[in-house]
Amino acid sequence: MESYAYYNPVKLIYGPGKLDQVAEEILPYGKKILFVYGQSHLKQSGVYQQVIDQFNKAGIQWFELEGVHPNPRIELVRKGIEICRNENIEFVLGIGGGSVSDTVKAIAAGAKSNFDIWDAFEDFHHKMHGGLPRAYPHIITDALPFGVVMTKPGTGSDFDYTSVTSNSETKEKLMVINKILYPKFSIHDPTQVYSLGKRELACGTADIMTHIFEQYFTLTTDTDILDRYKEAELKTVIESGLRVQANPEDTAAQTYLLYIAAWACSDQSMVGAAGGWAAHMIEHEISAAVDLNHGMGMVIVYLAWMKYVMEVIPEKFAQYGERVWGLTRNGHSARSVGAAAIEKTASYWASLGLPLTLKDAGVDLSILPRAAKQAVRFGPLFSLLELKEDDVAKILEMAS
Amino acid sequence: MESYAYYNPVKLIYGPGKLDQVAEEILPYGKKILFVYGQSHLKQSGVYQQVIDQFNKAGIQWFELEGVHPNPRIELVRKGIEICRNENIEFVLGIGGGSVSDTVKAIAAGAKSNFDIWDAFEDFHHKMHGGLPRAYPHIITDALPFGVVMTKPGTGSDFDYTSVTSNSETKEKLMVINKILYPKFSIHDPTQVYSLGKRELACGTADIMTHIFEQYFTLTTDTDILDRYKEAELKTVIESGLRVQANPEDTAAQTYLLYIAAWACSDQSMVGAAGGWAAHMIEHEISAAVDLNHGMGMVIVYLAWMKYVMEVIPEKFAQYGERVWGLTRNGHSARSVGAAAIEKTASYWASLGLPLTLKDAGVDLSILPRAAKQAVRFGPLFSLLELKEDDVAKILEMAS
Repeated sequence: MESYAYYNPVKLIYGPGKLDQVAEEILPYGKKILFVYGQSHLKQSGVYQQVIDQFNKAGIQWFELEGVHPNPRIELVRKGIEICRNENIEFVLGIGGGSVSDTVKAIAAGAKSNFDIWDAFEDFHHKMHGGLPRAYPHIITDALPFGVVMTKPGTGSDFDYTSVTSNSETKEKLMVINKILYPKFSIHDPTQVYSLGKRELACGTADIMTHIFEQYFTLTTDTDILDRYKEAELKTVIESGLRVQANPEDTAAQTYLLYIAAWACSDQSMVGAAGGWAAHMIEHEISAAVDLNHGMGMVIVYLAWMKYVMEVIPEKFAQYGERVWGLTRNGHSARSVGAAAIEKTASYWASLGLPLTLKDAGVDLSILPRAAKQAVRFGPLFSLLELKEDDVAKILEMAS
Repeated sequence: MESYAYYNPVKLIYGPGKLDQVAEEILPYGKKILFVYGQSHLKQSGVYQQVIDQFNKAGIQWFELEGVHPNPRIELVRKGIEICRNENIEFVLGIGGGSVSDTVKAIAAGAKSNFDIWDAFEDFHHKMHGGLPRAYPHIITDALPFGVVMTKPGTGSDFDYTSVTSNSETKEKLMVINKILYPKFSIHDPTQVYSLGKRELACGTADIMTHIFEQYFTLTTDTDILDRYKEAELKTVIESGLRVQANPEDTAAQTYLLYIAAWACSDQSMVGAAGGWAAHMIEHEISAAVDLNHGMGMVIVYLAWMKYVMEVIPEKFAQYGERVWGLTRNGHSARSVGAAAIEKTASYWASLGLPLTLKDAGVDLSILPRAAKQAVRFGPLFSLLELKEDDVAKILEMAS
């Protein structure tokens, strides 16, 4: 295992009906809040009214920012920051999925930064690759307190300190990772997930799996306990993903998805082994260009990435096949069991109704050359192998 | 799964050599500290000098409290509290195992309480059982900041908010659970565990397993992911326990033990399912009376407890046997596979050189009637079954 410093101060609240605890959790931080959410779904499902009733009862004054988009936009973030500054907002609440959580993080940090928050995203990527184009990087050092109610399993953004945001002007999708970006609380109320569409649930299921994979397929050795935790998560996500397709009101299965989404993307899952996340970086270029659902994009890119890099650690891919899919060696090589495990993964995702190629997902393939170039513009990616523009182009070709 | 509110703000620092980070982690909290440790081991191993050198270099002024006993005493805690008050101590550091960590917690809280800290232990037990003998319970509401370096895997006290302390005057061993009792940091440096004796490592290995069991054998249903995490932990602890017996300098195995000890006793393991902990309560009465090593006591009491309650959830015991020990059903009943799993557990503990009965552990059996009475003095225990004095007496007889 690699040395690490683990830290996660998020209060994670779980339970059917726990949505009714939102106002109580906000009050220690203030009574003037910005309430951020996505599309019309929140109003149709009754969540909006339930939360407003709580605000009124608790004497919380709220301002609203609606319309968070699945690949959340920096333009909306800037609007939220302006409200926070003009109205002296004390707390930011987000209700929705990962996009809402990512938006809330960027708003909370932006409200306390004396620069345009997009610069922090850019500089984070430059810094990660060792080259800063500016004398003074834009680093987040403070944020308004904020909390999240997760109504969609997948992201884990409610329990981590990463924000991923898109810039529709520059067609970029960038992230920033900073421990200032931990929510004060995250509420998991499985009854709020019932009304998600099956496609959304399928994308969320796949998204969780790829988060686990990004840390599982590692060059770090002596990871027995980390591997077993992740195999436990994978088996449970795979079962639960099928269960919620059959019955979206399967509380236990929805609970597992919410739970594992949070843990699998949290510091607990990130420490101890070097993760890769190159496939995520590549997918970000696709969804920045054509606004594809992230989970769906991950399925496609990840399958191609797995095939491209499997040769580096065939034993680990075979272990995945044996422990998660119940494959047996029976004298076969690690390569052959690993390849079968990738096939199992592909069939599983197909069984959830997800497309396995960019073409099937309706992506205009003419964007690929620019995507490959953009993916490495801060420097080569590294997941098991160093990936330069040429490698990314090959992976995208395999994903076509 | 049960509803929950998870929260754990401890910074967990892992790595060979990370002991050298102690002063740096203390400095944000102050420069005047109380340094708490156990027996002479720390001075022999060189840890003492290494830490003192760090203090001197960082300008940290330290007071010392040595001699923490394996079942830590409230008398020493009171001495530590006095030093904290007289010297205006700003931070308490503990280096050692669970007893040191438990002592540090009690000192840190006692220094900020205007009552004798033992009253908080007593009132916690009364409150847990619904009956308070006083109009105003003694509840911990503040503590000095404190941190821990773990040099012995087992307890998990460095990553949780429980303190267990003994009173040699009243022959009582009580606990207090309060989120104020979270350390600011815990350092896991596996190289500091090498010099532990094999007996200590065996007791620690067994202790970790019983912590996992106490939450695994539950009446709560729909715990798929919790079960699988715990089975992952059990398999890895079982392997690692044997590995460190063969080679105490097996860094990976020591790392797994430290890691799992922390997580298996943390809020992550405690939430989502109702745990029992009756066997722990019973063991506390034995070790309060005769000062037995806690891990050793747990082996003996837990085996008896498992046999006494297995009938309540035979399917879960069979699941444990199948998933952790690789037993197969082959047409056998859950009861029979469950019983075989208990036998496997007993053989494993015996293979670590641990005694399986109170007699073999050298415990004077005449203490048992009082132990059974004391175990339920705050009210009946509950782990799968309600356990009254009579039940505890039977379990202790089975353990004899």
